[in-house]
Amino acid sequence: MRPELSDFFPVWDKLKNEERKILLESAEMRHSQAGEMIHNGSEGCEGLLCLVSGQLRAFILSEEGREISIYRLLEGDICLFSASCMMSGIQFDIFVEAEKTSSYFVIPASVYKKIMEESAVLANFTNELMAARMSYVMWLIGQILWKGFDRRLASFLLEESAMDGTDDLYITHEKIADHLGTAREVVTRMLRYFQSEGLVQLSRSHIVLKKREGLEKLAG
Amino acid sequence: MRPELSDFFPVWDKLKNEERKILLESAEMRHSQAGEMIHNGSEGCEGLLCLVSGQLRAFILSEEGREISIYRLLEGDICLFSASCMMSGIQFDIFVEAEKTSSYFVIPASVYKKIMEESAVLANFTNELMAARMSYVMWLIGQILWKGFDRRLASFLLEESAMDGTDDLYITHEKIADHLGTAREVVTRMLRYFQSEGLVQLSRSHIVLKKREGLEKLAG
Repeated sequence: MRPELSDFFPVWDKLKNEERKILLESAEMRHSQAGEMIHNGSEGCEGLLCLVSGQLRAFILSEEGREISIYRLLEGDICLFSASCMMSGIQFDIFVEAEKTSSYFVIPASVYKKIMEESAVLANFTNELMAARMSYVMWLIGQILWKGFDRRLASFLLEESAMDGTDDLYITHEKIADHLGTAREVVTRMLRYFQSEGLVQLSRSHIVLKKREGLEKLAG
Repeated sequence: MRPELSDFFPVWDKLKNEERKILLESAEMRHSQAGEMIHNGSEGCEGLLCLVSGQLRAFILSEEGREISIYRLLEGDICLFSASCMMSGIQFDIFVEAEKTSSYFVIPASVYKKIMEESAVLANFTNELMAARMSYVMWLIGQILWKGFDRRLASFLLEESAMDGTDDLYITHEKIADHLGTAREVVTRMLRYFQSEGLVQLSRSHIVLKKREGLEKLAG
């Protein structure tokens, strides 16, 4: 069963009738093809995205155009930072793209902000959302700083495999580099090393996980 | 003039009389010596810290005990994450220590949480605080990933110098490594390179900035 708008908000029953009505009336269902950019840094402020189906990816960009994935959004998740204009404290540019064909509700930032300003319930819920994202980002810093790239890459391959439910990954080295914030050459070199260890089998835009336990041991 | 409790909250006038009264009555002034640990990861949940004077440092720890500074708190700043028990979404362990002898108000987490649950004003203010910290952390990720260590070290020396208002920095290489999330040897090597370029002059636990414009150019 596809989630309803109310399913995204555990505090739905604590909102006022009027607030629920406004949210329901303003939320618009949209669809994006895999690869489509949904939110483009500081350009525009679409609103909150509530992902009904598919998969989204939020990432930041370096001045040189290098990417790193900040988080993935799966069915039932809410993307807050695509409504960055809602809060003056949000001073970073985030990009959101559809990784898979996706359907999602969009709640306009102005509507959500207006309700949040009056409703302690919605403001506290938003606080919790932000705290959860913050926690993930703090974890990510530790990974980048203190976990070797071999471990990060092994973790990434296992996560991809778990999300797609298969050991056959169709993804380019370039894409992996974008996820992990590094250069394509670095990914290619490490994947070749994995292959020489019998952990994966490589072919064009295709990686087969051959020895999961080896990857899991590496990922730690 | 030292800040009053109300000075920490731009929304003070929008709070109810009763809420202001509870905050004033529950806030306790505390003092810490330089080097003292104020908040210790998941142990305890002191509450919000409102820094009246001095300087605090918030950092995270790797499993191997390596540190990286997440942010610095200066006079007038509020530390939210020392009250992490307030929000279930906060799932990371942060440590807070006094970098200089410091005086600060402590608002118990339970008191703050109770008001925030009722008050949209306070909840939205807390949202903005968290968004600002999140923005800083996102910037930090970009620095770690995409800015070379020479640039990060040059920026750090200039920031230290600006904060202390002097070109004479009394800080160990170990301390700098803790700030920047790296090993002491890496700091020592780079500082020696800076010295060979005439940018700094090194002696035991003492670094003198000799060529600010050179460091600024490097910091970018």
